[in-house]
Amino acid sequence: MNELGLAVREDAVGNIFGRWEGSEPALGAVGTGSHVDAIPFSGKYDGVVGVLGALEAISLLKRSGFQPKRSLEVIMFTSEEPTRFGISCLGSRLMAGIEELAQSLKMVVDNQNVSFLDAAESAGYKMGPQDLHSVFLKKDSYSAFVELHIEQGPILEKEGIPVGVVTAIAAPASIAVEFEGNGGHAGAVLMPARNDAGLAAAELALAVEKHVLDSGSIDTVGTVGILQLHPGAINSIPSKSHLEIDVRDIDEKRRNDVIEKIRRSAKDISKNRGVVLSEFKIINKDPPALSDKSVVDAMEFAAKQLNLEYKKMISRAYHDSLFMARVSPMGMVFIPCYKGYSHKPEEYASPEDMANGVKVLALAMAKLSLE
Amino acid sequence: MNELGLAVREDAVGNIFGRWEGSEPALGAVGTGSHVDAIPFSGKYDGVVGVLGALEAISLLKRSGFQPKRSLEVIMFTSEEPTRFGISCLGSRLMAGIEELAQSLKMVVDNQNVSFLDAAESAGYKMGPQDLHSVFLKKDSYSAFVELHIEQGPILEKEGIPVGVVTAIAAPASIAVEFEGNGGHAGAVLMPARNDAGLAAAELALAVEKHVLDSGSIDTVGTVGILQLHPGAINSIPSKSHLEIDVRDIDEKRRNDVIEKIRRSAKDISKNRGVVLSEFKIINKDPPALSDKSVVDAMEFAAKQLNLEYKKMISRAYHDSLFMARVSPMGMVFIPCYKGYSHKPEEYASPEDMANGVKVLALAMAKLSLE
Repeated sequence: MNELGLAVREDAVGNIFGRWEGSEPALGAVGTGSHVDAIPFSGKYDGVVGVLGALEAISLLKRSGFQPKRSLEVIMFTSEEPTRFGISCLGSRLMAGIEELAQSLKMVVDNQNVSFLDAAESAGYKMGPQDLHSVFLKKDSYSAFVELHIEQGPILEKEGIPVGVVTAIAAPASIAVEFEGNGGHAGAVLMPARNDAGLAAAELALAVEKHVLDSGSIDTVGTVGILQLHPGAINSIPSKSHLEIDVRDIDEKRRNDVIEKIRRSAKDISKNRGVVLSEFKIINKDPPALSDKSVVDAMEFAAKQLNLEYKKMISRAYHDSLFMARVSPMGMVFIPCYKGYSHKPEEYASPEDMANGVKVLALAMAKLSLE
Repeated sequence: MNELGLAVREDAVGNIFGRWEGSEPALGAVGTGSHVDAIPFSGKYDGVVGVLGALEAISLLKRSGFQPKRSLEVIMFTSEEPTRFGISCLGSRLMAGIEELAQSLKMVVDNQNVSFLDAAESAGYKMGPQDLHSVFLKKDSYSAFVELHIEQGPILEKEGIPVGVVTAIAAPASIAVEFEGNGGHAGAVLMPARNDAGLAAAELALAVEKHVLDSGSIDTVGTVGILQLHPGAINSIPSKSHLEIDVRDIDEKRRNDVIEKIRRSAKDISKNRGVVLSEFKIINKDPPALSDKSVVDAMEFAAKQLNLEYKKMISRAYHDSLFMARVSPMGMVFIPCYKGYSHKPEEYASPEDMANGVKVLALAMAKLSLE
């Protein structure tokens, strides 16, 4: 039991659950939660608002004298950000029962060549590979899952609306690409003799931007967030380059078309520059997720009861909710954030907006608990 | 005294000198030498051949019973590669008496924010800032300086010629550039709202290639060996990018014209993409160096005596000799290397080619010692 009177348990990879038992504990619970890990040089609201906010919502319901029928559960998901092992939403992906992930987690290493299993062990999680399956959620564990999160975009702030009711999460994909050339000395190798893996990477980065813009839809976005050159010395022609590319859209087919264009560009660049395209790997290519009507209804009910204006909207960022949607009816509550900034230190949400989000979350969960 | 009977001394920054006193020690010495430091993931011949080869040449002359008139000195220069502090040929540059360098070495830090003076101290060199001036060579310390080096280009191997007599060293320059944008979340920030510092860097890298090719001369080369993105996460739009650019030519004006075009491109890209060009810094912009006729004559004499075919050629890579040329008549002996490879692990020179280089070096030094 923690201070709030929640029964706390942890699964084999470090997802943490705090349960407030309802009057009918055999029913599927109402879940909420988010993550507290962060990418380097980012902000302190992404994820954290949905964990501390969930605890605050529980506290609010307890103080109000509410008695849940279905149990309420707060989840702190592990490793939402792909920072270390290149796998985003590791905790919720595994909870969603994705067998390929359980298999690949036995092999995956970080950039220091430390395996996931060794890293987990040194962090105090003693598990064998078979324990990864124990993380899979049982069917009907949750009757609903609601995540509170900052918008990470500018719309709510710009329109002065305190609450966003998320109806869908855009479909994310990520790709790893490597080019290899002969490298050599930056002074001694004349230009016609070069096959520069760094310039191939530069061309591909610009091709990603072009294909995304050519989609014709404002909803298509693509980013080269990682571009690394080897050996990375000023007087050495890059002999290897590594890019990681993020592509998203609310339309899965349109996103996949962009990925195919990027693949063709990578091949063309490789041919034109005489470099080897040694890797073009789709790390993940997830479908979009739709919120469930029952959860959307509960969020709208809550906002109306609280007299808070709200807007139905799409989440362009993805979240643990994308994977929880595979095993539970899902919805998300968004709150405004300063200028839409996220994944950088200027990320900010006001106490008032966070309080509104917590109230909507609490009331929506209460309603879902009684259904 | 070392095993070869050389009197060894070291200066304040770690340049090491081994002297074989001649019969007229008051005369300027004949110097030779190179470096043993290396960039990451490089080969083991660049520099090393000129240090071990110099010792071998001395050994050869001693074994032959030669008695030098001018003293012979082997120099092992410190920090020829710019790996840690971004300053190439640190040892020979300082020996050449460049006051600006002595000043900037008091301030310079590595990428871990460790200062040059602290790094030197922790490596056992206890010096105050004023000791940097003690490294400056006295006028007429050397009557000649000859460096043995692998070609780092493919010409000698391709033409089957064992010896290159270097008549000039191409003029190197290096530039550091930084772009800054707003960054943000790779999913949530729509394309029109972005100012991506990584794409600005990609465009500039391709512009460097274009301006170099536009020079119209095969002798102009330009390389982006370093391109770093911040924060460097797949789901984060780069908010900062850092490039280091190397530009060289045997024609100083043509090289400087390319640098100016790169500067204009950086400004244009910054304007078009709405990113800030927060740095465009010329780290160094050195003039080319011509070999001295006396040293070229001695090398040609040696090759002819040894019945070795040779070719007069330009060094496109630069070396400590570029800076020794400021304080001494200078020349360089090149030997072939496998496919012209350098700055990568495949770098190789055959024992036979190294032996030929050592013989030419020894005989040229002997001749210069008697002049």
